[in-house]
Amino acid sequence: MTGNDVSTAGSAGTSGTQGVHEQVVFCADEHSGLRAIIAIYSTALGPSLGGTRFYPYASEQAALADVLNLSRAMAYKNALAGLDHGGGKAVIIGDPSRDKTEALLRAYGRFVQSLGGRYLTACDVGTYSEDMDVIARESRYVTGRTVANGGAGDSSILTAYGVFQGMRAAAEHVYGTPSLRGRRVGVEGVGKVGHRLVDHLVEDGAEVVVCDVNEQAVERVRRRHPQVAAVAGRAELIAEPIDVFAPCALGGSLDDDTVAGMNARIVCGGANNQLAHAGVEKQLADRGILYAPDYVVNSGGVIQVADEIHGFNMDRARAKAAQIYDTTLKIFRIAAEEGVPPAVAADRLAERRMSEVGRIRAIWLGQ
Amino acid sequence: MTGNDVSTAGSAGTSGTQGVHEQVVFCADEHSGLRAIIAIYSTALGPSLGGTRFYPYASEQAALADVLNLSRAMAYKNALAGLDHGGGKAVIIGDPSRDKTEALLRAYGRFVQSLGGRYLTACDVGTYSEDMDVIARESRYVTGRTVANGGAGDSSILTAYGVFQGMRAAAEHVYGTPSLRGRRVGVEGVGKVGHRLVDHLVEDGAEVVVCDVNEQAVERVRRRHPQVAAVAGRAELIAEPIDVFAPCALGGSLDDDTVAGMNARIVCGGANNQLAHAGVEKQLADRGILYAPDYVVNSGGVIQVADEIHGFNMDRARAKAAQIYDTTLKIFRIAAEEGVPPAVAADRLAERRMSEVGRIRAIWLGQ
Repeated sequence: MTGNDVSTAGSAGTSGTQGVHEQVVFCADEHSGLRAIIAIYSTALGPSLGGTRFYPYASEQAALADVLNLSRAMAYKNALAGLDHGGGKAVIIGDPSRDKTEALLRAYGRFVQSLGGRYLTACDVGTYSEDMDVIARESRYVTGRTVANGGAGDSSILTAYGVFQGMRAAAEHVYGTPSLRGRRVGVEGVGKVGHRLVDHLVEDGAEVVVCDVNEQAVERVRRRHPQVAAVAGRAELIAEPIDVFAPCALGGSLDDDTVAGMNARIVCGGANNQLAHAGVEKQLADRGILYAPDYVVNSGGVIQVADEIHGFNMDRARAKAAQIYDTTLKIFRIAAEEGVPPAVAADRLAERRMSEVGRIRAIWLGQ
Repeated sequence: MTGNDVSTAGSAGTSGTQGVHEQVVFCADEHSGLRAIIAIYSTALGPSLGGTRFYPYASEQAALADVLNLSRAMAYKNALAGLDHGGGKAVIIGDPSRDKTEALLRAYGRFVQSLGGRYLTACDVGTYSEDMDVIARESRYVTGRTVANGGAGDSSILTAYGVFQGMRAAAEHVYGTPSLRGRRVGVEGVGKVGHRLVDHLVEDGAEVVVCDVNEQAVERVRRRHPQVAAVAGRAELIAEPIDVFAPCALGGSLDDDTVAGMNARIVCGGANNQLAHAGVEKQLADRGILYAPDYVVNSGGVIQVADEIHGFNMDRARAKAAQIYDTTLKIFRIAAEEGVPPAVAADRLAERRMSEVGRIRAIWLGQ
């Protein structure tokens, strides 16, 4: 970080690939070393909600670009999850293993608090429920805390459940039945979300084949479900005769090569930002592969932490996550009706909800 | 404004000429066209206070640079004015004659309100008390409103009064008496502040010579005080045999040429940013010219609007502005003791107050 780093003016209010962000807040506390950026893309549907990423960005510009993308994505995700939340996200610039201290997290918490609830934070890369407990000592606007502190616990539970519901919707759309019984599903990445998705798939009677760069993760799944097959990597997985491909690892799984070699008729997984670049959604559609938009089907996690704000109730949260089935089906229907890929249909549906529901605030409530 | 504009990373937390800003908030509202940046340099002494500038900046980068400088300057000004306020400032990017609408001002007001009182706004270039009345329809954290709405009214009244007090302190330091009777004072700029300063000087028995690019402004002063002389411009004014030079026009009056040609022994005026570049304060000291730091002696205006927050009382505000005399004397004393120019002594005193008074918050108050 030097004073010569540059930040794009897209930080707020410049139409473009980033969209128009409502508010971008740079925060610093000299003594604790805190450097954070909180981005609020939209509060049309309610207080913005999204996690805090703690990451050693190479520059403030890189951090800004990331938080602008992530906060925009949260607006779309929260809109289609049916939540009363706008999109927000925060990044703390630093190496969490070295820079994460009580003072830094609490200084950050004071900035979250200072926004008066316009931004609600939660866990993301580099932050954990224990960190949210610390931040919550300075701010009411924190979710994703530990269970002992009233938190919703591990949000990968409902993330995996939601991905499974999205996959059922895709099966219904393609095969006329939501069951995955007898379907062959390839799961890329069996970490926090992927291994729980395997549980759902096995229970539903699917054949599962997995891959993971972490051999221990694969071993853990195979101990639990000996019938699950494993292959070396993504390339081998998509070359398998599979019906469904479930990217549950890092983003960018769907690139030109993956799509060209794909045997699956359905893509539906828990990873964020699955499309490596714009246009891949069109390539998938052209090859007759049904793509369940990532941010629609992986919204179970945010549904889980959003529920915590009202005092966590797992049954209520699970029922909400089950609606991902209906939303995904609706997106496939709109895509067919409007002749666009499902990713485009999802964006349109999200924008419509933000615009239409946001507008009702013009109705004065009395005092 | 394009997405390719760049902003320095100094926006928050980068030590350098801008200092470390506590918070920098980019705000946008697509429908009203609002683009604003609110910069909070420090809240060590209390809620940040500073005006909103409405200006057609050539780029977001230029707006950011301006608001960072201005908010830092407000922190120092408020600290030495003895106020319980940190330093903040805001800029709205646009042409006020074309872009200023009720919706835009009210959208801006909602962002001011959203900061929960961490930033209090007021008038600045391009904004007027009538605009503050509009902003106040969306936010409690607005001062500088019209008198009819409980506002403090024209803040140039106490600005001029404070500059006069600073000049009395300089006379005390140089001549051993605060009176300006018989001294020849050159006033550059007889607009809102300058013409009121002339009133104080004439009343105190000073000889006054003025200049202004606006001939009508000069005529107005001479109608009121026929004994006041006028010269063509700044170059002619500083070439006059004057004891005191009072820059009350735009910033940057004190450059290499002005200082080299200066006859005055004292410089004390109402303009902001009088030093054209770093180092001029040293040149003045080397020539034996006593410089009363601009932000110290022109703080009567912010003292006036700060008083409004508690329900405006002109007597209380004037008594507070009268303390500029003591503060200015104290700065001259510290400068002499520490062997530095008064501008450096002022900065040190401001930093000391921010640090020492800011630290007392560590004492827990109970709940």
